[in-house]
Amino acid sequence: MHPDQPNASPLPEVIVIGGGFGGLTAAKALGNQPVNVTLIDRTNHYLFQPLLYQVATAGLSPGDIAQPIRHILRHTQNIRVIMATVERIEAKSVFTTVGQFPFDYLILAAGARHSYFGHDQWEAYAPGLKNLEDALELRRRILGAFERAEATSDPELQRIELTFAVIGAGPTGVEMAGAISELAKRTLVSDFRVIKSAAAHVILLDAATRVLPTFPEDLSRSAERQLKQMEVDVRVGAKVLEVTAEGVQLEGEFIKTRTVVWAAGNAANPLGRDLHTPTDQQGRIIVNPDLTVKGHAHIYAIGDMVSFSYQTGKPLAGIAPVAMQMGTCAAQNILLNIEAKPPSRFKYRDKGYMATIGRNRAVADLKIIRFGGFLAWLSWLFIHLLFLVGLRYKVQVFLQWVWAYFTFSRGARLVYGQFRPVKPPETDSFGKTDSV
Amino acid sequence: MHPDQPNASPLPEVIVIGGGFGGLTAAKALGNQPVNVTLIDRTNHYLFQPLLYQVATAGLSPGDIAQPIRHILRHTQNIRVIMATVERIEAKSVFTTVGQFPFDYLILAAGARHSYFGHDQWEAYAPGLKNLEDALELRRRILGAFERAEATSDPELQRIELTFAVIGAGPTGVEMAGAISELAKRTLVSDFRVIKSAAAHVILLDAATRVLPTFPEDLSRSAERQLKQMEVDVRVGAKVLEVTAEGVQLEGEFIKTRTVVWAAGNAANPLGRDLHTPTDQQGRIIVNPDLTVKGHAHIYAIGDMVSFSYQTGKPLAGIAPVAMQMGTCAAQNILLNIEAKPPSRFKYRDKGYMATIGRNRAVADLKIIRFGGFLAWLSWLFIHLLFLVGLRYKVQVFLQWVWAYFTFSRGARLVYGQFRPVKPPETDSFGKTDSV
Repeated sequence: MHPDQPNASPLPEVIVIGGGFGGLTAAKALGNQPVNVTLIDRTNHYLFQPLLYQVATAGLSPGDIAQPIRHILRHTQNIRVIMATVERIEAKSVFTTVGQFPFDYLILAAGARHSYFGHDQWEAYAPGLKNLEDALELRRRILGAFERAEATSDPELQRIELTFAVIGAGPTGVEMAGAISELAKRTLVSDFRVIKSAAAHVILLDAATRVLPTFPEDLSRSAERQLKQMEVDVRVGAKVLEVTAEGVQLEGEFIKTRTVVWAAGNAANPLGRDLHTPTDQQGRIIVNPDLTVKGHAHIYAIGDMVSFSYQTGKPLAGIAPVAMQMGTCAAQNILLNIEAKPPSRFKYRDKGYMATIGRNRAVADLKIIRFGGFLAWLSWLFIHLLFLVGLRYKVQVFLQWVWAYFTFSRGARLVYGQFRPVKPPETDSFGKTDSV
Repeated sequence: MHPDQPNASPLPEVIVIGGGFGGLTAAKALGNQPVNVTLIDRTNHYLFQPLLYQVATAGLSPGDIAQPIRHILRHTQNIRVIMATVERIEAKSVFTTVGQFPFDYLILAAGARHSYFGHDQWEAYAPGLKNLEDALELRRRILGAFERAEATSDPELQRIELTFAVIGAGPTGVEMAGAISELAKRTLVSDFRVIKSAAAHVILLDAATRVLPTFPEDLSRSAERQLKQMEVDVRVGAKVLEVTAEGVQLEGEFIKTRTVVWAAGNAANPLGRDLHTPTDQQGRIIVNPDLTVKGHAHIYAIGDMVSFSYQTGKPLAGIAPVAMQMGTCAAQNILLNIEAKPPSRFKYRDKGYMATIGRNRAVADLKIIRFGGFLAWLSWLFIHLLFLVGLRYKVQVFLQWVWAYFTFSRGARLVYGQFRPVKPPETDSFGKTDSV
């Protein structure tokens, strides 16, 4: 509570939906300001999404890259955290699974999910990677494939189980393909008796003509070269026609596999629909230059939910720095609005892009300098550690990586949850299907 | 493979069912011996069960107390690990979800689950604590209770959500009650705005006349005193008549709560049933003095599946040291049998008992000396660290504890998986029930 606020006029109520990079930054910028803030998130934790692929490939544990939102905000008395799913926005209220919350200002920061371009039935066979549950599900599937291969003596079945397809060669796809290859060819090599895990075949597919299509061409070439050194089978210009329990159908080829990772497309959280405001093809809200939603002067939208193309003519990428800078801007514009001052236009300060490909391989485009290889990987490591909230997490992840770097052993190789090893078809006597 | 074995006579096949304390010890004792070993487990990890309550109360992450069985046995070439669920044992074969495995010798080490004494319907409202999934489910419920309390403004509902009942005051119940109390009264105190987490009411129930009924009486008194210092409401001589979604029915009192932990009873894995051999009330196999199953000269049973009372007239407790010593004995008796030598009788060397009650509180009965308080806690910490497999795990858990000890902050406070915050009844407009 701000000491200058008279008790007579209650503080404005600000609701932030979403506790990711954008929402948490916005909430923090409103901390100890003359507003009451309610942050609503479906989960109880802030997730460092750039490292999620490490959880999916058993390099890190969920606890290494996530921490309770309450804990991060524990010293900010004007912010309340509510764990709930938002059902709809109506008039000046947010309706959730735990009740209704009225607002004077609203910041939408609910992010995006993966999109299957109208083929939602593919999701069962090719899950994406957005939250901890997704990551643990992918880990179950990837480690489960090795387990099933080990339990059968049929070489054809082993070959199918040891084939991994990653669809989409953006940063997530490149990271996943590199990490699966490393897991198979290094970490697991002494763990099995029947199979050779190093025989795994990791295929990276994209319809575009090069990997990392949003990066400069020389970095794409560098990334592709590094992927090939790691024995990843890179197939660009490959259009996926169908994904089934048996594998992936390309034009003229069927890849037999039971483990497919979807890293190809995104769609914004559909919450914006309630606001009847213009959106783009991916469902992203086309905001005003001050990040307000068209037709709603007190509602702001930020991060992956938003299409913002005033600056370069193209929408800004759905990456953490964009979301964080938008969070700060939306919070400041709310405070300016309360003081009846004009808002500022959002302006993105681009510090560059990075993608990691595996142990000591990466590419970086830091605007002033572009480079690949070990130095890029060290920079990636450093910058990502820097952004992790809290010293304890930085130290913990750093130690985990140092350990993994020198031992190639992955401590987080646990499978729990819904995983059940499936009967190979030839011994199945219970009429169950053999899909996971 | 043993170099002395002629290729003409194949090595005896030994199957071990279960990769817990007993099974893993048995498998290791057969490592690099003239036998082929197949270790079958439902999960892919060895679990350090004594610390499971720390995962349930958000003190440790799953990765801190578990590691892949394959990884532990990676340098032992004569041991194969299979991740599968055993369906039945017939003739000289084990039938699993991934196929059939013939054996010459079998070691049953499949452990126990909790037992509800014929009230299986209570499990939905009062889950127990045996594996990582159980622990994460309890964590979801415990942290979820605080979240629901924070999201409502009804003081009666808050009181119900902040009431926690632990049924059973053996070591697990005492540890859980202590850890929940510590979580509420220390770790979470600055996290909430509406509720005071320290107002939580933790009730420990047991029908027996004292806590830790299998420990000496003076240690029970010490444990009860320490629990009361931590504001745990200890109720001995309290018989549970019914557990529902609304709470726990005692004689003459109904405790309204939505979070109940079951730590009251065990039942052996029912695999022994296929063998038509005598069992006790808890379904434990009454083995011969050499740990063979009566009527099956080549089948051994060890650990929590077993009732062994030749030594003291009472069955040995279901604790890790018993299981591990049995594992070694069964493995040695198999090797003796192969050499046509007589088996040795199992003899348990009792090193004592310990139970921890919370941060720097514990009781210990080390036979030569019995003590409670901080020194007991330090001993507990030291001995448990010593038994964790692998240096990395020891260092990691030790650092996590040192951190928690000085900061009272719990890094593992994540909720993921099936948790959904429920609508409080008064705002529920969708006809859903309000139980989790």
